[in-house]
Amino acid sequence: MSLSLRKKRAVARAKAAGVDCLLVTHLPDVRYLCGFTGSNAALVLAGGRAVLFTDGRYTAQAKAEAAGSRVVIAKKPVVTAACEWMEAAGIQRCGFDAAQTTVAALEGMRKSVSTKVRRGLFQAVEPLVAGLREVKDAEEVATMRKAALLGCQLFDGMLSFMQLGLTEVAVAAELEHAARLAGAEAMSFETIVASGERSALPHGRATQAKLPKRGFVTLDFGVVVDGYCSDMTRTVHMGKAQPDEREVYDAVLEAQEAGVAKVAPGVTCAEVDEAARSVLRTAGMDKYFSHSTGHGVGLEIHEGPRLAAKQTQVLAPGMIVTIEPGVYMPGRFGVRIEDMVLVTATGGEVLTPSVKAWIEL
Amino acid sequence: MSLSLRKKRAVARAKAAGVDCLLVTHLPDVRYLCGFTGSNAALVLAGGRAVLFTDGRYTAQAKAEAAGSRVVIAKKPVVTAACEWMEAAGIQRCGFDAAQTTVAALEGMRKSVSTKVRRGLFQAVEPLVAGLREVKDAEEVATMRKAALLGCQLFDGMLSFMQLGLTEVAVAAELEHAARLAGAEAMSFETIVASGERSALPHGRATQAKLPKRGFVTLDFGVVVDGYCSDMTRTVHMGKAQPDEREVYDAVLEAQEAGVAKVAPGVTCAEVDEAARSVLRTAGMDKYFSHSTGHGVGLEIHEGPRLAAKQTQVLAPGMIVTIEPGVYMPGRFGVRIEDMVLVTATGGEVLTPSVKAWIEL
Repeated sequence: MSLSLRKKRAVARAKAAGVDCLLVTHLPDVRYLCGFTGSNAALVLAGGRAVLFTDGRYTAQAKAEAAGSRVVIAKKPVVTAACEWMEAAGIQRCGFDAAQTTVAALEGMRKSVSTKVRRGLFQAVEPLVAGLREVKDAEEVATMRKAALLGCQLFDGMLSFMQLGLTEVAVAAELEHAARLAGAEAMSFETIVASGERSALPHGRATQAKLPKRGFVTLDFGVVVDGYCSDMTRTVHMGKAQPDEREVYDAVLEAQEAGVAKVAPGVTCAEVDEAARSVLRTAGMDKYFSHSTGHGVGLEIHEGPRLAAKQTQVLAPGMIVTIEPGVYMPGRFGVRIEDMVLVTATGGEVLTPSVKAWIEL
Repeated sequence: MSLSLRKKRAVARAKAAGVDCLLVTHLPDVRYLCGFTGSNAALVLAGGRAVLFTDGRYTAQAKAEAAGSRVVIAKKPVVTAACEWMEAAGIQRCGFDAAQTTVAALEGMRKSVSTKVRRGLFQAVEPLVAGLREVKDAEEVATMRKAALLGCQLFDGMLSFMQLGLTEVAVAAELEHAARLAGAEAMSFETIVASGERSALPHGRATQAKLPKRGFVTLDFGVVVDGYCSDMTRTVHMGKAQPDEREVYDAVLEAQEAGVAKVAPGVTCAEVDEAARSVLRTAGMDKYFSHSTGHGVGLEIHEGPRLAAKQTQVLAPGMIVTIEPGVYMPGRFGVRIEDMVLVTATGGEVLTPSVKAWIEL
C-alpha cells in the first residue's frame, strides 16, 4: 500500500471519529503514515494535507523519507509547532491518540494555542493508526517474511554454535553479530538466552551463566529488517533429558501447534488463546503458563491484537501474530515455543518454519 | 544510596507536593526506587509502605530484586491493581507523573476506583523521581564509570579494526559483539556509524555503505552495564584530509573542550551550551550545529538536565551529562565529539578519556 493510501485511510477514520484533523506523535505511527524514521516528529493530517514537523538534525533525512508530506523544520518543540500550525490553518477539531499522549503533552498542546480555540480543539480518539497497522499490506508482509526467515536462518546457525561451557552472553553475542552481518538493522528486543534453571524465567536476559551439561536453553529473539520486527522462540535441550522435561516439552509443542491451527479470519483472539491453553490444562500444566498466548507484531515488537483470555477482537487477513505458549516450573526449568503466524484468507501461515521437534544438543 | 533512602526521598518530595501517595509507572523510575527490572510494573509509595505490582511472569524475579518492597502478583493490569489497593488503603491524594502517564492511562486509573473517591484522588505532580535521578549517588557513579570506561575500551579496539572497504554495519557488528563479550548487557541505543557524506547526518544509523578511502567516520554508541547507559562519540578520518575537514574538526574539538571546561556546580545548562556554541559561532559554523550541546544520562540514555539554550537549570554535583557539539555540512561531511562528564564538587570530570586529538587511519 502506498503511503498516500495509508494517509487517506487514516484521514477517513479520523473523519468517522468526528475530527477534521489528526495529530500523530507516536513515532511508529508517523513512520507508517509518512515514511519518516527520525526520533523527533509530529505529523498533522488535515484533509488532503500532510505536514511533518521535525528538527534541524533531520532536515535532509525528512525531505528524502517523507517525500509525500510537507516538511517543517521546527525551532520549537515539534508538537508546539504542529499545534500552532493547526490554529493558523483554522482546524476546528483535532484528534489525538489518548494511548500515546501523556497528560503533560496534552497540557502543552493546549497551551500552544490561544484560549479562543483551546476549548474543544483537542479530542481524544481511539488509536486509529494502531488499528490500521494491525492489518499488514502486501509490502509489509513481504518485509516481515524476510525478517522472520532471517530469524530462522540465525537460529539454525546457533544450533551448531551452542555447546557446553559457553555463557548465555556468548550465545547472544554470536547471534546478534551474525544478525548484523546478515542485514538486521537491530534486534527487535533484548535477546533472551535462558538456560538450565533460568529457563523457568519467561524473560531471562542472557547472563554469564554457562550452558548446562543437562538442561534446557530457551532462545527468544527477533531482528529488525526495514523497520519491521521478527519474533521467535525455540527451546532446545543440552544433553540427555529427564522424562518430565520431555513431557513438558511435548505438551508445550502440542499447545503451540493447537494455537497455530486455530488461527483463521473470524476467530477471536480469546479462542486462539484457549486453543493453546486448554492443551496445557488437560496436561495439568496451565497454572505454569503465566502469560498470554501471543500478540501482533510489526513496526513494534508488541502491537495489537492481543491473544489472551476474554479478548473478543476477531482475527483478519493480513494480521501477523505470535503464538507462544510456555510452561515455567520455578526453580526447575521452563519451555516456550513461538512462531509468527500470518492470518491468510482461509487460515494461518507460519512465517518462522524453523524446526520445532525435540532437539538434543 | 540504599533503595530505602531513595524511596524515603521520593516520599518526602511527594509530601512536599501535597500528596500522601505516589504512583510510579515509568519503568526506569520503578527500577531506581525498588530495584525491579521487569517489563510490567507499578509501584505505590504511601508513607512507609512500598508495594510493587507486577504479573505472573515475574513472580520469582520481583521477590528477589525488590526485596525491600511488598510484591503483589496482579491478575488485572498492574495500574488497575495499584489503584484498587490505594482505595482500599484509604489513600486520599495520589500523585502521578504527568510526563509519564498517558491520557488513556489516567482515564483507566479513574475508572479503577469508585466514584466516591475518584474526584480528587489523582493529582498530576512534577517528575519527582526523574528529578531525584538527575543526581547520581556514589553507587551509580561507580557503575557509570564502568560503563563509560568499557565504551572507551571498545572505541580503542575499533581503531585497529576499522579499515577501507568494511561496511558501516560490519563496524557496528564488531563493536556490539565486543561489547557483549566484555560484559555489556545491551547497547544504550542504536549504534551510529556514519561515514563519508553520511557523517553529515547527526543520527546516521550504520548502513551497508563502505568506509571511505578519504573521509570522516563518526562512531556514536553506548553500552549498558548494570542498567546504566554510557554514551560517547568520536570522529576519525580515513586517509588524508582536506584542509576544510581539518578546520571543522579543530573547531568542533575546541567547542567540545570549551563545553567540558564550563561544567561546574552552579553553572546553568544554557551557559554550558553557550560555551560550546560560541566557539562555533566565532568560527562561522554555528548554523551547522543543529542540536543542543548535551543531556543527562543514567538508567536512560536521555535524562535531565538538558544542556541547551535558555535552559536555566543549574548543574549540581553528581549529575552526569554529555557534551557533544557537532558540525554537519549537508552533502559534504560532519564531525561530532562527545564525552560524558561528571559534575564534581568543584568542576567536571570526563568519564570517557578516549583520545580526542585528530586521528587519521
